[in-house]
Amino acid sequence: MNTEAASMDTLREQVDRCLREFVDRQLPLTGAPELEPLRLAAKELLAGGKRLRPAFCYWGWRGAGGADLPGVYQAAASLELLQASALVHDDVMDKSDLRRGMPSAHRRFEAMHADAGWHGSAEQFGMGAAILLGNLLLIWSGEMWRGSGLPPESLAGAQPVHDHMRTELMCGQYLDLLEQAHGENTFESALRVALYKSGKYSVEQPLRLGLALAAGGLTPWMDELCTTYGTRVGIAFQMRDDILGVFGDPAATGKPAGDDLREGKRTMLVARTLAAATPEQAALVRSLLGDPGLDDRGVAALREVIEDTGALKECEELIGAYLTEALACLDQAPITAEARSALAELAVAATSRQA
Amino acid sequence: MNTEAASMDTLREQVDRCLREFVDRQLPLTGAPELEPLRLAAKELLAGGKRLRPAFCYWGWRGAGGADLPGVYQAAASLELLQASALVHDDVMDKSDLRRGMPSAHRRFEAMHADAGWHGSAEQFGMGAAILLGNLLLIWSGEMWRGSGLPPESLAGAQPVHDHMRTELMCGQYLDLLEQAHGENTFESALRVALYKSGKYSVEQPLRLGLALAAGGLTPWMDELCTTYGTRVGIAFQMRDDILGVFGDPAATGKPAGDDLREGKRTMLVARTLAAATPEQAALVRSLLGDPGLDDRGVAALREVIEDTGALKECEELIGAYLTEALACLDQAPITAEARSALAELAVAATSRQA
Repeated sequence: MNTEAASMDTLREQVDRCLREFVDRQLPLTGAPELEPLRLAAKELLAGGKRLRPAFCYWGWRGAGGADLPGVYQAAASLELLQASALVHDDVMDKSDLRRGMPSAHRRFEAMHADAGWHGSAEQFGMGAAILLGNLLLIWSGEMWRGSGLPPESLAGAQPVHDHMRTELMCGQYLDLLEQAHGENTFESALRVALYKSGKYSVEQPLRLGLALAAGGLTPWMDELCTTYGTRVGIAFQMRDDILGVFGDPAATGKPAGDDLREGKRTMLVARTLAAATPEQAALVRSLLGDPGLDDRGVAALREVIEDTGALKECEELIGAYLTEALACLDQAPITAEARSALAELAVAATSRQA
Repeated sequence: MNTEAASMDTLREQVDRCLREFVDRQLPLTGAPELEPLRLAAKELLAGGKRLRPAFCYWGWRGAGGADLPGVYQAAASLELLQASALVHDDVMDKSDLRRGMPSAHRRFEAMHADAGWHGSAEQFGMGAAILLGNLLLIWSGEMWRGSGLPPESLAGAQPVHDHMRTELMCGQYLDLLEQAHGENTFESALRVALYKSGKYSVEQPLRLGLALAAGGLTPWMDELCTTYGTRVGIAFQMRDDILGVFGDPAATGKPAGDDLREGKRTMLVARTLAAATPEQAALVRSLLGDPGLDDRGVAALREVIEDTGALKECEELIGAYLTEALACLDQAPITAEARSALAELAVAATSRQA
């Protein structure tokens, strides 16, 4: 096993531990037995995941000369709380039934209500409980970040990035709602949504946080690295997500085949398809996309159009091109050799993943 | 006009200004014109309100010897962002149509979608946008608090209270969902929900924050003041809310008459009514409470039972008793005379309000 692989394993273990311990420290949650379902739901949500966001943050910190301190794992792990919050609320907003192959949080609370035979609407109870769970995770992400134990000057230097990232994420999600509502998406508008809703807070901002923490603020080369490497890896990351949402293996993604098609997501992949489609192909896409009852045959028909128009190949090529540009930029950055190698590996992992 | 009244007016003006300026400083929101509805919704939500929470915080600070610094208005004003967030999410969870006599946030976004004739479900768009708006307000409450400009040792001393308050609020709201779902409420369980969902973050914790900010942490007498004065005013505040939800003047509350009855809220007032009701009265309450189609006659019938059982009188007396105990405790606290007088006035205002 090489050094980076060993570091990645250590990082994952540390992040897992930080998250477990943090949730268990939430005193108001352990006092009342009725609150136990909230704590359990949080812990289960936080148990999985690729820990990509903490990894970008950690290697930003190390790349700018930060030492391997316990506090940086705490700060990096806090990004998983933000991500978990976004997933819980996203599933409520999309009315998604599944998350990583398991019932989504609101469906679990809904089932708890139904099983107990409680009063009122089980669906409304599930939605309410999931909104509150997402809020807890959002609050805790800020609390864990601030309480990381890193020096105050580190935290103060990175705080503007942290504040910006959180507002930007919510704005990106709102732009996504608008994009779905407007219906007629272009590649450019889908790209902007992908960047603001996902790319930025998955890659660019975690990296920026790590760099800013280590340096107590951002220097021009750091900003340059984040906006070139970070943006490109972020967009390619989301483009891979678009492809997995249509062609992904349900056993790996934990979502039914073609789930994004059933939900009618207006992705970069769909925009490329529509831009290159014949009138007949475009009509087929428009008639099937977003049909909640879309079956395997419908999914197969849409997949065929996405392949025949060349949109799939085009997106794969774009991912490759973005990755190449990102790696070239990484080569120029004055970071440590170990971080350069780890960030290169992370860029590949984020854009070639199967789930 | 006496000194306290002048101070209260100044406080309100300062809080208004801080909130307006803060929202306008949110750069990611001003960049894209599509985000303007989020910013406008936030500003409108923050424009109203009695500013009770900032007032408890401000007078805690002054009471413990804090000077009249600009930063304390910022820190106090941040509580209004937390409150606005809770209201937006509450209305989503309760599916409420109105807030202060105007359409609730999710209904406004829903109407925006419907008016524009966009794709997909207008209701789902409204819900999603309101969840995101609530998240923005929640994030900003922490950001404004931290960025108040008060000395780091003040903020560090009060941060544990701040963290605790936010988690406690979400847990309290979850307990409220459970209380409504369980249906069979007792006075004790309704009181616990009232305390955790509303009382604590409306009175006790804002006061505690102000005291902790001024002293860089909490001394025993401060903790004592918060748990006696704060808890009692908080419960009486919520009990007044229960009464207004049934007997309030729609012109003042901005909600239809008897709205809490239609929603089937399991309040302390309802628990007292059921505890004192004859079997016939109890059957009537159970048959009408929570009926979405409850008309004026039904509201009048329920009001009659609430009065005839003596529950209304009992709750009014409890409010009076809690207020007396709170004021007695205030007399013993080693705070400044000006703060003592202002906190006494605030306790009366919070528990005898008409809206």
